Amino acid sequence: MAIKLEIAQEILLNSVNVMPKERVTLSDCWHRVLAETVVSDIDFPPFDRSPLDGYALVAEEVANAAPDNPVVLRQIDNIPAGGLSQKPVTPGTACRIMTGAPLPPGATGVVRLEDTVVDGEMVTVLEGKGANKNICFRGEEICQGEELISPGTVINAGVMGMLAVLGKGRPFVFCKPRVALIATGSEIVPVDFPLSLGKIRNSNSYMLSALASEAGAQIVLMGNAADDVDQIAHLLEAASDCDVFMTTGGASVGDYDLIGEVYKKLGITVLFDRVSIKPGMPVLAGLREDKLFLGLSGNPAAAAISFEQLVRPVLLKMGGRKVWWRPRVKAVLAAAFNKKTGAKRFVWARCWQKNNDILAEPLYFQSNGMLKSAMAANSLIVIPEDTPPLPAGAEVEVILLSD
Amino acid sequence: MAIKLEIAQEILLNSVNVMPKERVTLSDCWHRVLAETVVSDIDFPPFDRSPLDGYALVAEEVANAAPDNPVVLRQIDNIPAGGLSQKPVTPGTACRIMTGAPLPPGATGVVRLEDTVVDGEMVTVLEGKGANKNICFRGEEICQGEELISPGTVINAGVMGMLAVLGKGRPFVFCKPRVALIATGSEIVPVDFPLSLGKIRNSNSYMLSALASEAGAQIVLMGNAADDVDQIAHLLEAASDCDVFMTTGGASVGDYDLIGEVYKKLGITVLFDRVSIKPGMPVLAGLREDKLFLGLSGNPAAAAISFEQLVRPVLLKMGGRKVWWRPRVKAVLAAAFNKKTGAKRFVWARCWQKNNDILAEPLYFQSNGMLKSAMAANSLIVIPEDTPPLPAGAEVEVILLSD
Repeated sequence: MAIKLEIAQEILLNSVNVMPKERVTLSDCWHRVLAETVVSDIDFPPFDRSPLDGYALVAEEVANAAPDNPVVLRQIDNIPAGGLSQKPVTPGTACRIMTGAPLPPGATGVVRLEDTVVDGEMVTVLEGKGANKNICFRGEEICQGEELISPGTVINAGVMGMLAVLGKGRPFVFCKPRVALIATGSEIVPVDFPLSLGKIRNSNSYMLSALASEAGAQIVLMGNAADDVDQIAHLLEAASDCDVFMTTGGASVGDYDLIGEVYKKLGITVLFDRVSIKPGMPVLAGLREDKLFLGLSGNPAAAAISFEQLVRPVLLKMGGRKVWWRPRVKAVLAAAFNKKTGAKRFVWARCWQKNNDILAEPLYFQSNGMLKSAMAANSLIVIPEDTPPLPAGAEVEVILLSD
Repeated sequence: MAIKLEIAQEILLNSVNVMPKERVTLSDCWHRVLAETVVSDIDFPPFDRSPLDGYALVAEEVANAAPDNPVVLRQIDNIPAGGLSQKPVTPGTACRIMTGAPLPPGATGVVRLEDTVVDGEMVTVLEGKGANKNICFRGEEICQGEELISPGTVINAGVMGMLAVLGKGRPFVFCKPRVALIATGSEIVPVDFPLSLGKIRNSNSYMLSALASEAGAQIVLMGNAADDVDQIAHLLEAASDCDVFMTTGGASVGDYDLIGEVYKKLGITVLFDRVSIKPGMPVLAGLREDKLFLGLSGNPAAAAISFEQLVRPVLLKMGGRKVWWRPRVKAVLAAAFNKKTGAKRFVWARCWQKNNDILAEPLYFQSNGMLKSAMAANSLIVIPEDTPPLPAGAEVEVILLSD
């Protein structure tokens, strides 16, 4: 009995837990998922500092300085970036200061080097308006105790920089879920093998491995198995350190649909055995202790859509992400879709913006052209169940793919 | 003299070449850039095959089969997936066949297992309409000699699957450009060090390393250097196997702006020394033989925008990509931007779709809040030079960031 997609998604999401956390060196954290709440233990900047190269001084003194009204000051010190000065700046004096250096005591502003003329220790200020604004104040960007980043945040360039500013050189991130993948089918040969009549190469493992990587998982390729219960069961047990076990092939009706028998042999409880979507209906989901088993179709088009709709959200939840679903937008069909739809259907598509519309063009119509479509697609059109053929111009819902 | 952004981009793009290619095992190719033209040396499917589990037969014989008009045939063989049968199917006979198996000689159609009743070797067909359509014909998806993938294609899940189908177990991809990165400034300390007064942690290296990874480069972190010509020059030479050399800090006016001196010492020809954009004006670009040197600002906001606008396109070109620019869309300002703009300005923003509009909200206005903005941004608003303050509702151009 095929169950509804939303129910299948809920069953799977309820069957898995978020992964434990691990510490990872910051330089290896790009695109990992943060597993801690980051609270700043410093103000940032940690001190009042100069945003430019120039002279720290008493701002009020130079407020009206101009080429025809120059103010002459005596330089009392020189602060490089990373340096310090304890000499107080008083009226009539100034302190040379570099970008990023701490303001010396007494200084209430900074004038730009370009607005001064220097002769020995005498500094002539030719433009002083706004000198009091040329200060980055302590805590201006970040306050001590401020909660800055929450668990589940994907570490992008900005987050990397922020973690560094806060001294988080080895932040906690969620472990990546490990997904064992076995391609089954006596017709399948490894990619580098010669092809004999009746055989095809294993492409599902590579396609699914890319999809799993994109979902933040660590794929463990367990190779190919013949249509043989013992062989498949053996490979699954050999990958027992993994968190999710995925097979392709042997999941539909027929003599050689063995995954059900494998589950029986291994004591895996079946959660459901098909989902009413097209393509991707055959999915034999099972659970043993807290490990999830997912038997996908051997058909690449079906396996890809089952993965997108059922496996990806599970991997994102396990990986600690906050958002498990891809963005959806309304779009306009750029060409007719001439098939009627029974079970909810997903169609590879290419979307683009034109004036204020998003147009979506279905890519090929045959599941046999699937790899060409998947290479070119940037989106999936979602057609609800029981929909007649759709004319060009019809409004459709589209899932945006990032790949 | 600051030069225009477009001129700076052209100078840099003309200064670099596409990287050489290398062979990489297919399972490691996700998101790499293909460096060969892939032409199929097979038809795919490589033989006429069954798309389902059922019986191969003479389709014309069962065209009118129905529950009240059953057609009884004799099973003469059984073809598992990966198997073969040489026994010709003739009128009155049928051959059991599994999904993906090659059609036996003589068969012109397949009926579904579910539409038959089997008793010993006798097969009763209850529904035979369309049996002639249940064949995937040889070459239906791919023809031998067909050019399928061109150099510069980023290897997504569909491309991975296609390469596997074609037996490309170790395709040629472009080598990743290696980018040496040195953070300069005596005020900078490594991320795990204790902070003393006047010091801040090195965050630029991490932020830029994430940006470089996203641009398909291999970052080589060379650590921090004090404001010292010899030290910086030494670190640059120590990274001499790299393709691009990036520094942050020491690139604007002032006593401690040393990168110019470093270039002189190392015999690096200056290409330009500032670009009229805000933030990100100070960029000291240099060339020695075919190696590019890029001195970015030490200010994170400036460094990030210089990288986005100047370094990223260069890395994408070197990495063999076809497209060097991010997508741009028209959007509507969700809040006023109250500053007037002299040099072309880039503002971190958050975009979202509302009805038929894309709205863009500027994130903070101070460069000091840069890391918070960069964490939350999904886009950059581009404000042309010499633009007055912009009210909410103004149309703006927006660059979409993928991160």
